[in-house]
Parts: sequence; structure tokens; C-alpha cells
Amino acid sequence: MAGATYTRIYLHERPVADITPTTFKSEQLPLSSLVPGENEVLVKVHWLSLDPAMRGWLNDKRSYVPPVKIGETMRAGGLATVIKAGPGSELKEGDVVSTRPGMRCWTEYAVVKTKDCEKLVYPKGANMLDFLGALGMPGLTAYFGLLHVGAVKAGDVLVVSGAAGAVGSLVCQIGKKKGAKVYAIAGGKEKCKWLEEEVGVEKAFDYKDPKWKEEFKKVGYLDVYFDNVGGETLDFMLTRLKVGARIPLCGAISDYNNPHPKGLSGYMNLISQRAKIEGFIVFDYAKEYPAAISEMASWLADGTLKRKFHIVEGLDNAPKALPMLFTGGNTGKLVVKVSDPVNKDAAKL
Amino acid sequence: MAGATYTRIYLHERPVADITPTTFKSEQLPLSSLVPGENEVLVKVHWLSLDPAMRGWLNDKRSYVPPVKIGETMRAGGLATVIKAGPGSELKEGDVVSTRPGMRCWTEYAVVKTKDCEKLVYPKGANMLDFLGALGMPGLTAYFGLLHVGAVKAGDVLVVSGAAGAVGSLVCQIGKKKGAKVYAIAGGKEKCKWLEEEVGVEKAFDYKDPKWKEEFKKVGYLDVYFDNVGGETLDFMLTRLKVGARIPLCGAISDYNNPHPKGLSGYMNLISQRAKIEGFIVFDYAKEYPAAISEMASWLADGTLKRKFHIVEGLDNAPKALPMLFTGGNTGKLVVKVSDPVNKDAAKL
Repeated sequence: MAGATYTRIYLHERPVADITPTTFKSEQLPLSSLVPGENEVLVKVHWLSLDPAMRGWLNDKRSYVPPVKIGETMRAGGLATVIKAGPGSELKEGDVVSTRPGMRCWTEYAVVKTKDCEKLVYPKGANMLDFLGALGMPGLTAYFGLLHVGAVKAGDVLVVSGAAGAVGSLVCQIGKKKGAKVYAIAGGKEKCKWLEEEVGVEKAFDYKDPKWKEEFKKVGYLDVYFDNVGGETLDFMLTRLKVGARIPLCGAISDYNNPHPKGLSGYMNLISQRAKIEGFIVFDYAKEYPAAISEMASWLADGTLKRKFHIVEGLDNAPKALPMLFTGGNTGKLVVKVSDPVNKDAAKL
Repeated sequence: MAGATYTRIYLHERPVADITPTTFKSEQLPLSSLVPGENEVLVKVHWLSLDPAMRGWLNDKRSYVPPVKIGETMRAGGLATVIKAGPGSELKEGDVVSTRPGMRCWTEYAVVKTKDCEKLVYPKGANMLDFLGALGMPGLTAYFGLLHVGAVKAGDVLVVSGAAGAVGSLVCQIGKKKGAKVYAIAGGKEKCKWLEEEVGVEKAFDYKDPKWKEEFKKVGYLDVYFDNVGGETLDFMLTRLKVGARIPLCGAISDYNNPHPKGLSGYMNLISQRAKIEGFIVFDYAKEYPAAISEMASWLADGTLKRKFHIVEGLDNAPKALPMLFTGGNTGKLVVKVSDPVNKDAAKL
């Protein structure tokens, strides 16, 4: 590999509001500079996950993970193959792994700690990309947010925002499986059609339609509002709560790029309805992942859980793809294909 | 009692923002018009409770209780003596009772249903007014909000707003008893002095001091924020949460009179800190009242729970007294004395 180079994309400047063309830059580096040390592996990256939470990592603020540093390779969870294992590593050449979201994976090759990789073990009927979907962070986020924080139960009226996104579309499906009446909110007629016809929600509301709130009121009041968008939609839902309603706060896409969010003026409804808003981070449920993955995998295997990926080709397109999450450009899970798998697992893709 | 009259105060017009001199009106009615029917009693009112929640009852909005109607005697919990018992009533003449907050008690005399009255049973060391304080709604609200919703535990950093009020001052004391480090927020130096010296909080912050937030930051981050005021203070506290923080939302005094609340812009911190805001209504804990009253009474008996009442004399002064709750005019529990007790219980007062 003498003389060979690889591309990495790093944070160049922190965005004040929207991500701009100068937020990220890329550079070529010699591949020979990547040497795995003790308990490390050199991996070739195949797939990157793009997630709304990544916008928060770009801010220099206190959060659940440290901010990405200027000059640092952008972080993302990914799927990769081990090219070379350092001394003492439990992984070996050819192993296909998922890397934790904290890893710096906007790159063609990376050296990562063995403990930050998980060797893929395919449940029956699963494929590689499922580890960025139902069996990965989006699936686990949907699962624990809806079932643990939202405590959804049969007969509940469940409302899901960002419903055509990676997490939202899985929340809708898990909600249906648990017997809830599911109402979806998404941007645009096409997404709503997909949600009603393919995902099978009771009704999908297009928030770009100025009359959607009036229409929504016909639903009555809600037991669980799984919130991916925050802002104005969350504020409206605060006026639609039943007694004891739960709002798992998963994300706030509508406000991530907003340096001065308008804020929730309807919060007093939480008192009269004895309701709660509760934030959560999926990592806190790590010990319970296996049981969740097992249940989700069974739904994938019997064909009752639908996959939906929006694939962007090429690492160079990652900076342009990330903002799609905030403009509604994707339906389903947004991923970047960096390279083809290098071994027999390719067949599973 | 032929020819005798009594005074009642009724809702004359709904306030848009602040309560005004024309919000309530009073009138004299013949006492002979008050005749208790089956399972009803005629009571003479001695004490009225004034509570921030009453502002919400004046709005024509969906809430946890129906709005007070125009022309209807203003509602309040009170303490009263049975003057005459209707057929089938379990209460008898001379019984001293507390009336539920839903009763129309801004009046010298009232006919109320027996089931809406509770005969006072004095725990050791308790006096009549305690049933509007530690052993009544304020005490129960503080107890269940802090211990059930807030789940405060030893070592927690507990922050209390409206800390010099009826509920807040009890929350501070219950928090201390449970081993929390208690920080108070109140309006004015005098209240802060009282909180530090009498109630014994770690430190009290005067929100009228423009530098209080900077000072507060030295406390670090909090585990439980018991919120009585909402608005700007709540929004600030959203930036001061530890992981897993709980915010029992008890009231929103700062926004009750505000037709256009500014709203909570810091709600996204709930995600990164896996924190929750949860509204509650004390009535939901009715089955657990006896255990709570028993514990609170033991603290009153051993002198470790301090009483603080702000007494306004005369029913006619109730309309002027109610707004004090929103301007910070009272320290401790605000009550109106309507009449002297009529029997042996007077000695306990």
C-alpha cells in the first residue's frame, strides 16, 4: 500500500445555524500513517450512518457527548471490515464490524479501538445494512423510546413526528405491533402516502399543509407523542394531551439549526393533564440491547417490519447529505455508501 | 335568623391577564335561602385558602377542573363549622370540617354536599389552620410532588422556586428532611433571609437581583427542580440539569396571568441530560393522603416542620388578597379569615 492515500472529512468550522459548504473539509492522507496499536484495528469503512443528533455534536456546548473538535474527523457510526488487527486485538482481519457512533468514521479508513467495534452477528433474515437500521441505533432508539419512556400500550393514541425518518418510521411500526392507534406527521404528500399505504398508519398529516393542525384536532387527544422534531409541532401537541400523556423527547430536528428557538409556550398543559416530557439517550439502555435486537430481528425475519433506506453514494457526498435530515430530503434511514464490502459478507448486502 | 343576610363573592368577568377590581363582585343574600337538602349541610366559613391554581379556574379553558362560571361563587378550599345538617347527612351540627377546593366557599355561609366535606381529626400537636397548610393541600402537594414525582433522595441537589410560598416553603423543609442539599429561589431580600435563617436552606437566591443567575451557576447542576413559577426561571433551570434530573411541575405563577407566555427555549437539554418535566395534580394521590398526613403531623408535633401563614382578615378582602400570590406579596400560606370558629375548636386555633 506504499504511496496509497485515503480521504477523511473533518470539522472545519462550527455552524452557527445551518450546516454550510465550509462546515466540513476533506483531505487526502497517506494510508501508511494508519497503524493499529495495541487493542486497535485498522478498518475499511463501507457504510456511514447520518443522524440528526450529529448536528448537536458540532456545537461547542455541554451535551451527552463531547463536541467534535475543529480539525477532527467527523464522527458517525459505521459498518466496516477489519484490514489489520493490532497486537492483542480480539478482532481479526476480515471481521465485519459496526463502530460505535462516537468513532471518527467520516473516512475511508480508520484506526479504532477494538472495544469500540462490535463484530456483526447476523440474526436470521438480517442483512448488513440492518445494523444501521432496525438492528442499530435507529431501531433501538425507536424501541426503548416508545416502550420504556413512552410506555405505549394497546389502545393508546400514539402520535409520531418525523414519522418518515429512520426512527419515526420504526416507531410507527412498533406502535402498531403493540396495538396502538398510530398517527403520523411528516413533510410532504409523498411521505404521507408512503406512511399510510406502506407503513400502515391510521392517518398521516402533512405539516406543510397550513390546515394540518385543524385536521389533526379531529383525532382528539393523545396518550403518547413520540417527538423527533421539537419546536412548533411539540408546542401544538402540548395542547392535545390526555391525562397521563407521555412525550418521549427523542430529537428536535426543527430546532437543531436554530440558535434562538421560539420555545414551548404550552407547557402549562403538562400540569392540568399530569403529563410528562422526558428526554432519553439510547446508550443508557445498552444492557437491554440484545433482547430488543432479538425481538426486532424476529419482525424482520417474518417480514412484518419494513426497511427503508435512503442511500447516498460516496464519502465526498456526506457533507451535502447530512443537511437533508433537517430539510426533509430523506425518507427512511439516511446512509452513505463509502465502499463495497470486501469479503463474503458482501453477498448478504 | 329571619331577615339575616350573608355575603358571597362571585366571578363577575374573566380576567384576560391580571385579576382586576371588576373580576369579582360581592352581594348580600338572605340567609334563609340556604337550606341544606338530603346529604347536604349548611356551614359557616371560618378560613379560606388562597392558591395560585385559582387563577387557572378563572379561564374558560380545558383544565383539570371545569372553569368557574360567571356569576358563580368563587371556589376555594376552606375550614367551616356545620350549622345545620340536612336529612341523611353523616355530619352533625357543630362538626368542624374542611371543604374540598372545588367547593364554592368565597362566602360567609354555604350549603355543601356532605361528601365534599371532611370532618377534621386533629393529629397530636396540630391546630385548625394546619389543615390549610402542612396537613392540607399545600403540604400534600409538596409531599407528593417532591417525593413521588421528583423522587428526591439523600445527597440530591434540590432547587425550589416560589420557595417562600405555601408549597415551596414546605418543599424546602421536606427536602432537607430527606437529606437533599436545598437551594431556594424567592423574590426579595426579606424572603431570602427567612429561607436561609428560619427554613435553613443552603442558600436562597433573590430573583429580583439581576445577577442571581450568575450567582446560581456556582451551585453547579441540579438533580431535582421543584417548579412553582414556570417561565423564565424554569427555562434557565433547563440549562442546569444533571443527567437524570427530574422537574416536578407544580405551578407556573409567573405565566398564569400571561396570555402569551414566552415559552421554554431550553427544552432540548432534556434530551442530552435524559431529564424530565412532569406535571402533577395532588388529587391523584388521594388514596395516599393518610400516610402523608401522618408523617407530616409527626414533624409538626416534634417541632421540626415550621408553619408560616399570611393572614388576611375579612372575606371582603379576598379579591385584593388573591393577586398577592402573583406579585409575591405573601410569605408562607395565604389565607383569609372569614369568621371566628364557633365551638370548642376555637381553643385550638
